[in-house]
Amino acid sequence: VSANYLNIAIDARKQRENKIKQILEKRKIPETGLENHEIEMLVNELASMDSNNFGSKYGVGEREGRIICDLVKKRNFNFGHGIGRSGDLAENQPKATGSSIMNKLTNELLLDLVQMVGIRSAKKCLLFPMATGMTMMLSLLTFKSQRPDANIVLWSRIDQKSCFKCILTANLHPIIIDSIKVGDELQTNVKEFENQINVLGPENIVCIISTTSCFAPRACDDVETLAKLSKTFNIPHIINNAYGLQSFYLTHQIEQCQKTGNVDLVIQSTDKNLLCPVGGCIVFGFNEKVINDVAKNYAGRASLSQTLDVFMTLLHLGREGYTKLVKERKNLFEYLKEKFNDVAAKHNERILQSQKNPISLAMTLESFDDSKLTMIGSMLFTRCVSGARVIAPNEKKTIDGYEFLNWGSHNSNNNIPYITAAASIGTTKSEIDGFIDKLDKVLLKIKNNES
Amino acid sequence: VSANYLNIAIDARKQRENKIKQILEKRKIPETGLENHEIEMLVNELASMDSNNFGSKYGVGEREGRIICDLVKKRNFNFGHGIGRSGDLAENQPKATGSSIMNKLTNELLLDLVQMVGIRSAKKCLLFPMATGMTMMLSLLTFKSQRPDANIVLWSRIDQKSCFKCILTANLHPIIIDSIKVGDELQTNVKEFENQINVLGPENIVCIISTTSCFAPRACDDVETLAKLSKTFNIPHIINNAYGLQSFYLTHQIEQCQKTGNVDLVIQSTDKNLLCPVGGCIVFGFNEKVINDVAKNYAGRASLSQTLDVFMTLLHLGREGYTKLVKERKNLFEYLKEKFNDVAAKHNERILQSQKNPISLAMTLESFDDSKLTMIGSMLFTRCVSGARVIAPNEKKTIDGYEFLNWGSHNSNNNIPYITAAASIGTTKSEIDGFIDKLDKVLLKIKNNES
Amino acid sequence: VSANYLNIAIDARKQRENKIKQILEKRKIPETGLENHEIEMLVNELASMDSNNFGSKYGVGEREGRIICDLVKKRNFNFGHGIGRSGDLAENQPKATGSSIMNKLTNELLLDLVQMVGIRSAKKCLLFPMATGMTMMLSLLTFKSQRPDANIVLWSRIDQKSCFKCILTANLHPIIIDSIKVGDELQTNVKEFENQINVLGPENIVCIISTTSCFAPRACDDVETLAKLSKTFNIPHIINNAYGLQSFYLTHQIEQCQKTGNVDLVIQSTDKNLLCPVGGCIVFGFNEKVINDVAKNYAGRASLSQTLDVFMTLLHLGREGYTKLVKERKNLFEYLKEKFNDVAAKHNERILQSQKNPISLAMTLESFDDSKLTMIGSMLFTRCVSGARVIAPNEKKTIDGYEFLNWGSHNSNNNIPYITAAASIGTTKSEIDGFIDKLDKVLLKIKNNES
Amino acid sequence: VSANYLNIAIDARKQRENKIKQILEKRKIPETGLENHEIEMLVNELASMDSNNFGSKYGVGEREGRIICDLVKKRNFNFGHGIGRSGDLAENQPKATGSSIMNKLTNELLLDLVQMVGIRSAKKCLLFPMATGMTMMLSLLTFKSQRPDANIVLWSRIDQKSCFKCILTANLHPIIIDSIKVGDELQTNVKEFENQINVLGPENIVCIISTTSCFAPRACDDVETLAKLSKTFNIPHIINNAYGLQSFYLTHQIEQCQKTGNVDLVIQSTDKNLLCPVGGCIVFGFNEKVINDVAKNYAGRASLSQTLDVFMTLLHLGREGYTKLVKERKNLFEYLKEKFNDVAAKHNERILQSQKNPISLAMTLESFDDSKLTMIGSMLFTRCVSGARVIAPNEKKTIDGYEFLNWGSHNSNNNIPYITAAASIGTTKSEIDGFIDKLDKVLLKIKNNES
Repeated sequence: VSANYLNIAIDARKQRENKIKQILEKRKIPETGLENHEIEMLVNELASMDSNNFGSKYGVGEREGRIICDLVKKRNFNFGHGIGRSGDLAENQPKATGSSIMNKLTNELLLDLVQMVGIRSAKKCLLFPMATGMTMMLSLLTFKSQRPDANIVLWSRIDQKSCFKCILTANLHPIIIDSIKVGDELQTNVKEFENQINVLGPENIVCIISTTSCFAPRACDDVETLAKLSKTFNIPHIINNAYGLQSFYLTHQIEQCQKTGNVDLVIQSTDKNLLCPVGGCIVFGFNEKVINDVAKNYAGRASLSQTLDVFMTLLHLGREGYTKLVKERKNLFEYLKEKFNDVAAKHNERILQSQKNPISLAMTLESFDDSKLTMIGSMLFTRCVSGARVIAPNEKKTIDGYEFLNWGSHNSNNNIPYITAAASIGTTKSEIDGFIDKLDKVLLKIKNNES
Repeated sequence: VSANYLNIAIDARKQRENKIKQILEKRKIPETGLENHEIEMLVNELASMDSNNFGSKYGVGEREGRIICDLVKKRNFNFGHGIGRSGDLAENQPKATGSSIMNKLTNELLLDLVQMVGIRSAKKCLLFPMATGMTMMLSLLTFKSQRPDANIVLWSRIDQKSCFKCILTANLHPIIIDSIKVGDELQTNVKEFENQINVLGPENIVCIISTTSCFAPRACDDVETLAKLSKTFNIPHIINNAYGLQSFYLTHQIEQCQKTGNVDLVIQSTDKNLLCPVGGCIVFGFNEKVINDVAKNYAGRASLSQTLDVFMTLLHLGREGYTKLVKERKNLFEYLKEKFNDVAAKHNERILQSQKNPISLAMTLESFDDSKLTMIGSMLFTRCVSGARVIAPNEKKTIDGYEFLNWGSHNSNNNIPYITAAASIGTTKSEIDGFIDKLDKVLLKIKNNES
Repeated sequence: VSANYLNIAIDARKQRENKIKQILEKRKIPETGLENHEIEMLVNELASMDSNNFGSKYGVGEREGRIICDLVKKRNFNFGHGIGRSGDLAENQPKATGSSIMNKLTNELLLDLVQMVGIRSAKKCLLFPMATGMTMMLSLLTFKSQRPDANIVLWSRIDQKSCFKCILTANLHPIIIDSIKVGDELQTNVKEFENQINVLGPENIVCIISTTSCFAPRACDDVETLAKLSKTFNIPHIINNAYGLQSFYLTHQIEQCQKTGNVDLVIQSTDKNLLCPVGGCIVFGFNEKVINDVAKNYAGRASLSQTLDVFMTLLHLGREGYTKLVKERKNLFEYLKEKFNDVAAKHNERILQSQKNPISLAMTLESFDDSKLTMIGSMLFTRCVSGARVIAPNEKKTIDGYEFLNWGSHNSNNNIPYITAAASIGTTKSEIDGFIDKLDKVLLKIKNNES
Repeated sequence: VSANYLNIAIDARKQRENKIKQILEKRKIPETGLENHEIEMLVNELASMDSNNFGSKYGVGEREGRIICDLVKKRNFNFGHGIGRSGDLAENQPKATGSSIMNKLTNELLLDLVQMVGIRSAKKCLLFPMATGMTMMLSLLTFKSQRPDANIVLWSRIDQKSCFKCILTANLHPIIIDSIKVGDELQTNVKEFENQINVLGPENIVCIISTTSCFAPRACDDVETLAKLSKTFNIPHIINNAYGLQSFYLTHQIEQCQKTGNVDLVIQSTDKNLLCPVGGCIVFGFNEKVINDVAKNYAGRASLSQTLDVFMTLLHLGREGYTKLVKERKNLFEYLKEKFNDVAAKHNERILQSQKNPISLAMTLESFDDSKLTMIGSMLFTRCVSGARVIAPNEKKTIDGYEFLNWGSHNSNNNIPYITAAASIGTTKSEIDGFIDKLDKVLLKIKNNES
């Protein structure tokens, strides 16, 4: 092959290597996303640093990263050792240098992402290969171990089951602080929080849990005030920011907390914020030690699957790609609001006012008989509408002995039936159009008694 | 295309569909393993039943199984929704019929595997997408919630960190029952267990934890007697069967327990028993309710990754494939013993007698100065020997305030230096040969002071 | 799994199966492109109909579609038997029903594409798994076998080597008909064609070869007039439509031919028209027999690779996708013209007028010394500009004894130096911007003697 | 990550890079096969040297290696440019340095393979991305162009269609030299070859074509004597060694030719010798110029698919892997002979003696009525036996005007019905067992008139 042509190819290779070197050195998400083959080359390179992929190796242990099914090997890019060591999720594995590097790097890239979407003062970020609920539970157990006398958790009511279950699983006692209605909107009952702290005694409280992203008309919690209480009374504070990284409004609330109050951990899911499969949880905070304490409480090695999915997704998107997703989402939220308004007007309903919820919207269903509400939900579902939720008043639900009035509405006193819909990242305009169209038809059908 | 040829192709297709139908209906591992493309077709078929893969769909929720990076999509076979629902790991997901079927089926196939390797009375089996340590912790939390006054765990000492950590992470108090030496072998101190139960009171004990598979010269615990104590005193009993499914000797011990005693849960890892990547845990038991209770305590949705890896591995192996692996392992254990004996004799050392350990072997290093022991370990490691462990007496280790004398040797009184090696499934003859060769050379080098 | 959820999944499956059934039945490109996993499922289904993928099979021949390397198996989707039989490229293979169906279907979809882009009267289309040059040669050999006394080919000069070589490889004698200059444009010398036919005698001529798509300032040949000559004198006529499917202007010329004249075969490449890897050739015609004769002249079985690439590409694009590509290309051609004009003006050069070339453009380089022309080309190449060609006058080239004056310019009398650039499908706006930018800088550098 | 662990990973990486460097430098098949991920890393590295995979590139040509469908891109490992240039299959492509290197390297590895299996004096080897028939045709056209007056091909009859068709496709005239029967075996009629040369005149003959591997009871041609005739009379000589690389007996015959006679080209298929998909052809010779002449006669660029399949297969197998395949095949041939003998004895038939055929065997079917013979064949086929051929006497076939008596038996005078079966590389013992079992049952069924 002629030297001239070869040189051009070698130059191109150097450029690519530089791009990758920069990611490894700067530990930042690249400006522009990488091509698929570039991502694969980097991942393969890392995998080849794990001992199970060495050319010569003599494994006489019980855990040698062996993979017997080729399809499994392939889909795991030859990674077999998982991440972490028995005592610490963030520790490196001697047998798995490549996995360890990828894991560390992914956590750095996630910190970069968190800062990039507005939480500039975040100090450390860690991916947990478990559901957010389980990660919240592990955090509660960690706080509890440091506050041996405490066993109460103050919880701003949000009707999402796993968020409540995690308190029970940790064998702690929840105090449910119901939301208060301000106009249509359901807001944090800050007074009741303060009251409970005084009544129960701060030393008896393991943690305060607040939530940002949620279904309308519930608002993002008043995390700033709760953060102040946390600081004043020296009670740990976890923010459940489930899918909040995608909204600058929500990330701004979190960033504000730090200025005057205290937040120990902010917990969110990988799938909902990064559009990858369910299974991981991003935890960040403003104090390295708190994160490290939770990581050290993870007993055993963990799957690398979530790391791999997140790592590849971040490299694929680049800063540009994620920023674009976030912007599109914001525009689609406005679009959904407009269309939702139209269909509401047509059916003599209205959109509930909930300014502090930038992702979800709710439309009343007051002109429909209570007996028809479930039917609306199931008719939409069989028409391939997913994610819309119909809330009928007076549903009662008991979870492990704790009773919730008006389950689904985040508030004991709700008496308005409604349907919610959200514009999250990854939604498309045609999905919204389809939803509005199906909703309109279903409501008409119900009214005409034809269903 | 001529009808004749087409018919033959259609017949072949029917055969394949029958094979798959049988797996779905009988819920048993197929006799012979499936071809890669057959596995892929089944997995793809299941994936196409999840709503994120529907042709027309209108997602207006925050969790719609969207995957943005094609590489991630591909490696997850288009599965995005994970498994379980917020309240229960074993529950089906409305949006993810295919995932739900695969999950249920994988659990049935695992039960079939457990029964096939000798634990015929197993009633229910569940794959947890977490490390064994974390799953053990979740089990302890579950038992604790049912025994509110108890907070002690009786633990037969085994020097494997995550198994101990899980007790601490659950905020429970371990009572460490040291092993006793019988000849070379370290056996369960059954008397001390009985003694502690009497002293502490059964109602104050959350659980007994015993271990089967371990490093020589520790023996498999006397699980049968511990199971009797569990039954007599009505204390839950977890067997940590880490990599024990691969040995008929160990599975036989477990099966025996049931006849006269009680075992609540048997916990083991997917990677070590099934040769797939780290990250999952197989839990089985003899009482459906116990398993269901733990599953219902998992807060949140979980990753499908472990399910997918295990499902594909089981289909790939078939009963034949797994049986072959188990037989080969048994033969290689005898081979390792023979070769290990030879190298021991050559260096005036001996193999420690440990009849109740069918996987791991230990060779003394008594002719070596204590100061050289670490060097042996690290020289082996740089020569690509992994999994061999050099145990020097008098190592002390403190885990969260608990002190262990002679850490690594499972016994406070050990005074013999030794090295362990194991013949686990997946090991090859050439790995054993390589290990013996490197070991011989390293010992010679140390003796000749050349290192 | 609940019946309700299962039904929705089954409905979705039926929808997908319907979509595929329609493709198989109607043999038309789907309106909208298929998702990757849908394409894979269809391809896998077809592969499973080939005997090498049957569950039980007893091969005792020398050609059983065995594939030993898993990576090769995977990338070929388990297809191993190729297409065609020893005597006929279009024949079905008894051992490979799936391959045969895919092959037939691909040819039907290609015919649909050809009609869709404007050649409505096309009757049959066949994919040849060889370069266009080789396929043209095979066509010439076929015509020759039917005209035993003839061995001359009349060839409208186009300076693209393989198009000329194919005549020589077939052991035939080319008569080169030079283009004539009309304004800037190089057009077909129709008179000379007629003259040569009369001089040489139609019975001595194997074929007329004309070309549509080419580098400016050569125009698309006057295929309509040549088609008339072909009909009048009963001489076969091949149109080399190399990358002409992407332009409605060119396809229109071809469609017109049929009305008053004769075209036997139209030959074009798969890579340039369909954006898939190099290697295949699309042949279509207006008379089934002619195509079949060439297919029957292919000696031996052929690779399925090209079929697979084309099949998947057509399903991926759908009619919508291809139409979009064609429209974008047209717009980018206008964009290139505008930008090219600007840079020409800046450097006191001009765009050569060539109305009958809808893809390629040429800019003069008259203000540059002849000695600098090669440098311009190589400087652009090292700056990652590819596809631009600098033509210097007075280049002489000899191919197997045939001498070409002004090689590269399609005309013996050209005395203008120029550079060409094309807007083909798949080009992006940013590529054009990059080219213009680099061109401008290179020209400046040359002028400033800095290179 | 600790420096110690990192160093071990870096060492492992160096080892792997050395392995690859050696392949690139020595241009020999590696002793041991590479792991899948090692093959992929090398292939990806090469692909990244092609201009279509450069980070920045400005393509303004019509052929820029663009691939629009991700599945196609993936399966082609991002290679898009094909191999060769318009004038020469072996030439490098400026835009595709990686493809060019892979192509050159594959040809070197193939030469190494050819020498390794016994043809030590082979000088040059080239992979043609076409069927063997088409490659033979291209070779004939090349010889013809150098012997303008000749147009006869002397062909030792073998009843395999594409081998005969290639002469006709090249518009040449075949002289069919029937085989002669020696015992059961059909051997080369060397006398008639000599006679025809004298009668027709050597200068009128384009080429002699002989065949090695074939169906019993035809023997490998007496290539040594034909090679002497070729040398004496200065007539080109092509050996059709279709699937002969897998037999040392056959390669030995070819190697012997060179000592006293002349062979110009030896042509064989990739799929049958290397167990990869149909589509390629290996051409080697003892004189570089002859191979180059044919390569230069290929008009146009060609697909890289065959190169990729062959390259990966050779790296996967290594010398060890191929040698093992060849040995296993030899053993299975003996096994087939034994079992075939048994079934023949049982049905009062016998194996035809054909010592010079090391791959195929034939068993008489003399006790069956002629009317039942086709039924035997089709019953076997519907029972998934493929590759076995039933030959009934007195079949007549006409190919393009040439008449063959007893088509299928390679000889005009055959009057024995028989069935052939072969033991080729890749066959398994269980396939042979299945075949023998099905054959036995079919013959019984026919005899019992039950079919």
